[in-house]
Amino acid sequence: MFELLATDPSSQARRGRLTLPHGVVETPIFMPVGTRGTVKSVSPLELEALEAQIILGNTYHLYLRPGMPLLEQFGGLHRFMAWDRPILTDSGGFQVFSLAKLRQITPEGVHFRSHIDGSKLFFSPESVLETQGIIGSDIAMLLDECPPWPCEREYAEKSLALTQRWAERSRRWIAEQGRAGQHYFPIVQGSVFPDLREKAARDLVDLDFDGYAIGGLSVGEPEVEMYRAVEAAVPHLPAAKPRYAMGVGQPDQLLELVSRGVDMFDCVLPTRVARNGAAYTDDGLMNLRNARYEKDERPISADTHPLCAPFSRAYLRHLIKNDEILGLRIVTLHNLHFYLGLMKRARCAIQGGDFARFRDDFTRRYRQGVIE
Amino acid sequence: MFELLATDPSSQARRGRLTLPHGVVETPIFMPVGTRGTVKSVSPLELEALEAQIILGNTYHLYLRPGMPLLEQFGGLHRFMAWDRPILTDSGGFQVFSLAKLRQITPEGVHFRSHIDGSKLFFSPESVLETQGIIGSDIAMLLDECPPWPCEREYAEKSLALTQRWAERSRRWIAEQGRAGQHYFPIVQGSVFPDLREKAARDLVDLDFDGYAIGGLSVGEPEVEMYRAVEAAVPHLPAAKPRYAMGVGQPDQLLELVSRGVDMFDCVLPTRVARNGAAYTDDGLMNLRNARYEKDERPISADTHPLCAPFSRAYLRHLIKNDEILGLRIVTLHNLHFYLGLMKRARCAIQGGDFARFRDDFTRRYRQGVIE
Repeated sequence: MFELLATDPSSQARRGRLTLPHGVVETPIFMPVGTRGTVKSVSPLELEALEAQIILGNTYHLYLRPGMPLLEQFGGLHRFMAWDRPILTDSGGFQVFSLAKLRQITPEGVHFRSHIDGSKLFFSPESVLETQGIIGSDIAMLLDECPPWPCEREYAEKSLALTQRWAERSRRWIAEQGRAGQHYFPIVQGSVFPDLREKAARDLVDLDFDGYAIGGLSVGEPEVEMYRAVEAAVPHLPAAKPRYAMGVGQPDQLLELVSRGVDMFDCVLPTRVARNGAAYTDDGLMNLRNARYEKDERPISADTHPLCAPFSRAYLRHLIKNDEILGLRIVTLHNLHFYLGLMKRARCAIQGGDFARFRDDFTRRYRQGVIE
Repeated sequence: MFELLATDPSSQARRGRLTLPHGVVETPIFMPVGTRGTVKSVSPLELEALEAQIILGNTYHLYLRPGMPLLEQFGGLHRFMAWDRPILTDSGGFQVFSLAKLRQITPEGVHFRSHIDGSKLFFSPESVLETQGIIGSDIAMLLDECPPWPCEREYAEKSLALTQRWAERSRRWIAEQGRAGQHYFPIVQGSVFPDLREKAARDLVDLDFDGYAIGGLSVGEPEVEMYRAVEAAVPHLPAAKPRYAMGVGQPDQLLELVSRGVDMFDCVLPTRVARNGAAYTDDGLMNLRNARYEKDERPISADTHPLCAPFSRAYLRHLIKNDEILGLRIVTLHNLHFYLGLMKRARCAIQGGDFARFRDDFTRRYRQGVIE
């Protein structure tokens, strides 16, 4: 169930509350990515300390390892990874198109070979929902085809037609065999063609789902094209359902999308960037490998998480330069805290009816990038 | 200050309490190894949760990175790594002999090249104490030469004479420039020759230090030779001072040494073995990569630490096989908990006057290695 609690008069930003089987999610929300049943380097206890409300699992990866028999034995991913708050799983489609070998798309589904051992596998709209039923995620995503960028209009049209046919089959499967309580989101595709994005949104809304994702973003297209694609889709999505922009993005991009009416986000950036030794701050990205932090006794920022506050930039630099795991652990916690905190500030600004000013102030300072 | 609280009637095991500038250490004690200013993968908060009472730092590594100017700026290692309980530092001598390049021992000290960048460096008995003064450790170790094994008697004699001359110089430096409150331990060498071990102990005791270490153990010699070396030294060390066996060892070896009157231990095994995916249990080492744990829903052991208890062997196996950091983190916490817990059980058994039986029961079961 999704409640719309407030709308911002200065933008299209929304403040909402999504109630899922494993808990309540306040939106706008950022979802840390836990590809293989773990948010890289972070324990579930730490995720709770960070006030993470929902995390993401990757169906493709979990399907390969640990595999469905084990997740079935454990009664799902929640118990397997000892995380009892909500989980969203992608359908696995994106990874089939980006990681798997020798893939072959047919109307029936997609044949591919595992990138791990080369074994022959097959995903269909129905099978990925069945898989996500075993995983037991709170939100399951439909199988789609995510066209690459750049992409000819003709390809985008054909691809969209396939995604739509798969959505129709998914809808039937859900009606017949859907898991009680599990939410199902289809994915709006259409590449950079606004009329295709609109058509995709309308056609999916006709099928009536629990929420709607916008996919095929941040796949290499110019930033302005990404916003245009979202702007083309959002007006045709129902106000009473949550909207999720998949795989985006930088902090300032998240705020841009919030102000366009998007409620949910996931992105590997905060965790991936941390493993390279960089920390997000209100003043931009801080590269802790930089010599300027060699003697810096201050924590990453004044508003870092209490778990990170005891550690100086100089100490973190020392750890990172020596490949000590504690270094990337602390920066990962900081970056997740930053992304989760950014969404908390966004929620607060929307409730204050002042989101556009918050976004502009944040973006100006963030892009200026003057780190003290 | 060291208080001898109890002695075990069934062995030479002792129960003691060592009061140091940063806190009290109950002995026998295991000290987790924090080579480069971090116990690998573990945060200081977690070390506190594990009830670690004292950790070890490596002077050679800290001298190279982050280097003394930075540690001086921070007022020592405690503030730099955000750990406010006791720290013991080795002298750096052992690493000079095992890691550094082109080393040349002279009566004055040891010339060597950094294993990182080849720069020319020099450690003397006085310089390593000065360095440990900057590090601000609670216990500083004297510079010694640790002969390799096997080793001719003639070499062992010459080496021991050098270690003794260095100890005399160290004693003078401490009297003149020692840091108030810092404890200083010399190292008993003498290879596998009992009379040299005895002589080393007697000569060092004549110089009067705060405690005494036994070095050159577990360098490749047969286990029985290690025990013989300890047995040759211990009777000549004062009962009123703590005794520290450096770099040892397996859990059952620790108990053997406790029953020979040793109070303090450090070893990389629990952390290193964890990074290879193996967990210590009362029934021996559990290799979590093993296929037999694929579907095992139980935690590593019934008495694992609460931080590890939520995770099944099957989940840990999944994490470890996929090189996920959370896997080695949890097993590291478990192994440190096991070593720290073993010493806690040893303290309890000594107070109960029943240590020999505890040791024998533990060892029988541990060596049987029948993991359920």
